[in-house]
Amino acid sequence: MYGLNGRILRVNLTDGRTSVETFSEEEARKYIGGKGLAINLLWRELKPGIDPLGSENKLVFALGPINAAGIPGDVRFLVAGKSPLTGIWGEANCSGWFADGLKKSGYDVLVVEGASESPVYIWIKDDDVEVKDAEHLWGKWSAETESLIREEVGYRDAAVVAEGPGAENLVRYAAVTHTAHRAAGRTGLGAVMGSKKLKAIAAKGSMSIEVADPDKVNELRREIVAQSFVNDMTNTLRDHGQAGFVPDLQNDGILPTRNFRSGVFEGADKISGQAMSETILTKGEACPRCPVACKRVVEVKEGPFAPVLPEYGGPEYENVASLGSLLGIERLDAICRMNMLCNAYSLDTISTGNCIAFAMECYEKGILTGEDTDGLELTWGNAEAAVRMVEKIALREGFGDMLAEGVRRAAQRIGRGSERFAVEVKGLEIPMHEPRGKKGLGLMYAVSNRGGCHMQSMHDPDIESPNMAPEIGVETALHRLDTSREKVLAMKKTSDWTAAINSLGLCSNIYWWGAVHYRPVNLVEILNAVTGWDYTVEEFMTAGERINTFCRAFNVREGITRKDDTLPPRFMEPLEGGPTEGQLITEEELDSMLNDYYEICGWDVETGVPTKERLEELGLGFVKLQ
Amino acid sequence: MYGLNGRILRVNLTDGRTSVETFSEEEARKYIGGKGLAINLLWRELKPGIDPLGSENKLVFALGPINAAGIPGDVRFLVAGKSPLTGIWGEANCSGWFADGLKKSGYDVLVVEGASESPVYIWIKDDDVEVKDAEHLWGKWSAETESLIREEVGYRDAAVVAEGPGAENLVRYAAVTHTAHRAAGRTGLGAVMGSKKLKAIAAKGSMSIEVADPDKVNELRREIVAQSFVNDMTNTLRDHGQAGFVPDLQNDGILPTRNFRSGVFEGADKISGQAMSETILTKGEACPRCPVACKRVVEVKEGPFAPVLPEYGGPEYENVASLGSLLGIERLDAICRMNMLCNAYSLDTISTGNCIAFAMECYEKGILTGEDTDGLELTWGNAEAAVRMVEKIALREGFGDMLAEGVRRAAQRIGRGSERFAVEVKGLEIPMHEPRGKKGLGLMYAVSNRGGCHMQSMHDPDIESPNMAPEIGVETALHRLDTSREKVLAMKKTSDWTAAINSLGLCSNIYWWGAVHYRPVNLVEILNAVTGWDYTVEEFMTAGERINTFCRAFNVREGITRKDDTLPPRFMEPLEGGPTEGQLITEEELDSMLNDYYEICGWDVETGVPTKERLEELGLGFVKLQ
Repeated sequence: MYGLNGRILRVNLTDGRTSVETFSEEEARKYIGGKGLAINLLWRELKPGIDPLGSENKLVFALGPINAAGIPGDVRFLVAGKSPLTGIWGEANCSGWFADGLKKSGYDVLVVEGASESPVYIWIKDDDVEVKDAEHLWGKWSAETESLIREEVGYRDAAVVAEGPGAENLVRYAAVTHTAHRAAGRTGLGAVMGSKKLKAIAAKGSMSIEVADPDKVNELRREIVAQSFVNDMTNTLRDHGQAGFVPDLQNDGILPTRNFRSGVFEGADKISGQAMSETILTKGEACPRCPVACKRVVEVKEGPFAPVLPEYGGPEYENVASLGSLLGIERLDAICRMNMLCNAYSLDTISTGNCIAFAMECYEKGILTGEDTDGLELTWGNAEAAVRMVEKIALREGFGDMLAEGVRRAAQRIGRGSERFAVEVKGLEIPMHEPRGKKGLGLMYAVSNRGGCHMQSMHDPDIESPNMAPEIGVETALHRLDTSREKVLAMKKTSDWTAAINSLGLCSNIYWWGAVHYRPVNLVEILNAVTGWDYTVEEFMTAGERINTFCRAFNVREGITRKDDTLPPRFMEPLEGGPTEGQLITEEELDSMLNDYYEICGWDVETGVPTKERLEELGLGFVKLQ
Repeated sequence: MYGLNGRILRVNLTDGRTSVETFSEEEARKYIGGKGLAINLLWRELKPGIDPLGSENKLVFALGPINAAGIPGDVRFLVAGKSPLTGIWGEANCSGWFADGLKKSGYDVLVVEGASESPVYIWIKDDDVEVKDAEHLWGKWSAETESLIREEVGYRDAAVVAEGPGAENLVRYAAVTHTAHRAAGRTGLGAVMGSKKLKAIAAKGSMSIEVADPDKVNELRREIVAQSFVNDMTNTLRDHGQAGFVPDLQNDGILPTRNFRSGVFEGADKISGQAMSETILTKGEACPRCPVACKRVVEVKEGPFAPVLPEYGGPEYENVASLGSLLGIERLDAICRMNMLCNAYSLDTISTGNCIAFAMECYEKGILTGEDTDGLELTWGNAEAAVRMVEKIALREGFGDMLAEGVRRAAQRIGRGSERFAVEVKGLEIPMHEPRGKKGLGLMYAVSNRGGCHMQSMHDPDIESPNMAPEIGVETALHRLDTSREKVLAMKKTSDWTAAINSLGLCSNIYWWGAVHYRPVNLVEILNAVTGWDYTVEEFMTAGERINTFCRAFNVREGITRKDDTLPPRFMEPLEGGPTEGQLITEEELDSMLNDYYEICGWDVETGVPTKERLEELGLGFVKLQ
């Protein structure tokens, strides 16, 4: 088999035993890799209703055929398990060196099961896999942990996933942290590591990955690299990182501000990637083989928010928004300090910011007072208080313990009408994309398999002037405020190919935001060159649909139905200020989009459950939902 | 002034004094930079007839406006002085970090004059310039010297030019060595360093270089990077280094073999860049800001020619040919060992290989015997003997002392008809390009200002299907064996723009061989974006002609006339074997090309001396040649 190794490494932390299984090329082809392999495994191995933080949960690291194949962006790995934050399908993705380490050791999938009694880490060096003591690392920040482990294993270039104390303390949105400034951030899979007393995983492999057509792969690599230098989106990423898009979002009035009340922020210019480039940026950083280098490294040596240490990188777009505009904070040094703390403690920045924004709005409304917040004055723009809250969440100290549960549970406990200000779907805090200005994304928030998520489809502006009509089945231009059936079809189709991207192992910054080569027809070209398969675009789109439907089935088994496919109250209120002022998503709009969506998916429209027929058409006949 | 600093740093080694002078933007614009500034300075400051190895000679390091400006390939610096090998205009170019170090310290030109009594090195850190003791470094190889100096000055990233013992021993073709595997190789300027007891120069600057139009420079950078990934030539350079062109030259029958007797080598496949990639290559290496990474790093740990140490890089095209096919040697490990020794001792590889090839042919013909060669059996393909000869040359040991004088002087001393086998022009050993298969290059060998040189013009195949007609004034395709006036015109024009490239500070691999953006119209676009000038293509070509004519005037002042513009006997004999078999350059062809050349240049056809009128037209009226 080219591209994939066909091997699964299983590590049981209860008894410390490791084993290797194989899977067939037929199975690989059916599920592509990554996300597809992960859902197929977790569906079969996880019993419904288990506690995500109990030893029955499993954590899967899954790679796709493109990982380490020599294509820019072939570095993204997927982590999956049952989410402690949402109780349903949990998934997060991260770029960096870890995919190389695992794949070049000969594995496509790592399954961590059981739980250790005392802290451990896993060290994977080709065929040698060890569970090692981590008692001396417990309590340490992510960067220090990573660096000590590299020293212990004796490879300066070992790839390490290393958790900070937020994961140990089971913060429900703890991230899986890699290189101390990359994260598989969402859905709290870092807490699953914490619950298993798994402090870190280190990997270093010495195999080289064989591809079916090396000349073609080389040619594609070159084309993609060349395109990345003449493409406006990748050039913005290269110059200013993801936060380089802040001015565009501000201009469109869709920069989430003050807990999503507004889409324009008066301090936008001060928190943009452009501002970062001019002030505290020390360098851009690239993942292996990447010509874009969108990662930021910043340093703050002076002032009230110093130090911000370069080993913790710098904020991306989600971070400057969730820790900046969403809190009314316009001090870049404070944002970077919070970003650093989230990375050091292993907290998801989006959920962290969203929880603090919720608390600030409750504070403004008098639902919370200084008595609830340990005396912290949680007013909009109070950077000192926000920085303090990050630490309190990570350490579950005082009011931090409440917010460490996530915004849905916090609102349920606080009550007193605070639920109105909890901006989440299925328990996952909404990320920094305003659906009232991109209504197709609103639908996606409602139906996405991991809850309120912006990474499960293209966004509306991407399909405003579609150049990919054959793949999305839509011939006409679709406005970002459009909610027609055509729009629903387009969103659904792009969500299928996003599932496929997440199964390939490709970076979303390059292949999606960056708009280099991201059409399915191009992805299929890459896939076939690497694997030697003869995938068609249709087959590729069907594989994406299979994977999405399979994840939906996982959620249905956990109790999810149409009633859960909804939006928070905030998005049904008019947006305040700016060019998108007054927009909202009505119940009727959402209902109409949902009806169309289920119909197009071939699901039962009343319940939102995939029909037996559609499951069979997709090769998932073995999935029984009734 | 943008691009250039307008400052000259002068260091006198006799008294250890340093000073700084400025030059005007008007002067910069007239001479562009680099080569233009160097000839203007050396014409005025060097007395005719001086000993190149005496204290009256000066060594100039000159940068152009593009150096360190942020464009790929903006790293090439020029070294100039009176050549100890040829007694005329000496010039060599080298890429790497040194241009950055000098320019970011605030200087465009470094002039080293006088001579020290004991070994010294120069340390340039912005405004602080010191002449430091180097007694403890004398005798050491280049890499060790460089690394000790970096430690002494306390900057791991200081850029260092460091000489090996070949320069100390005044080998007449000693190279100026940088990073231990880059070299301003030709015309023996390393021996000028040796004669001044100057072991090394280290530089580290902290200024940033301001360009006139940063957005335009950024845009050009991106276009060039993108082009470099979809251009066949740069892709070959990236994958296999310069030696990746060996198969092409072999196919055309112009791979110099056995002292230029043949243009096909039966071992070509074994010495190609492709063979290197498959065997001993450990990595490609890039100069700052370069997307191509054509430099090779190889390692040999076993066998009779081990060790080949990675700090000495790996062979480029000129090296695999001059130390391989030219000697009938097909062992890549032996070639790499010789390449390493040349780098360690600071010897020009082309001259070294050419001298050994000369000796091998003399040995074959019985002109030399074991008695002359200290018992070494200098037969074709004897790799052990060739490796030994490199060391003997560097140390001027026995017969090595003879070859250390260069092939012209060696033949003169040996006599006995050996002159027939000395393949040089004006004392400079011919590089690895067969002029009988590219006759325009034959003309250039005859007239080039630094003697037999392949770097003073495009080569005939470049203009076989010209896409740059406006610049070269030729509308029709010109075959590489053509010797018409049209061909002469084309060669002359390309030599003007090569002089201009060498004044800009741009890498020839990218902008010439690599064929990215190398037309004058593109170079002018870069130049204007960096400097804010409004150069036209015509003005740019005129500047190139001005610089070439100025260098010719320098040579005329040293006694050069038409009689010296000739070719070695070898090229007037038919080439043996392969697709170019039987080709030669006749006296008549050369005479006819010379007549056309002088006429086109506006020089006196009888003497080859630039006329007063042409000098005046070019703004060189102050140059008096009669």
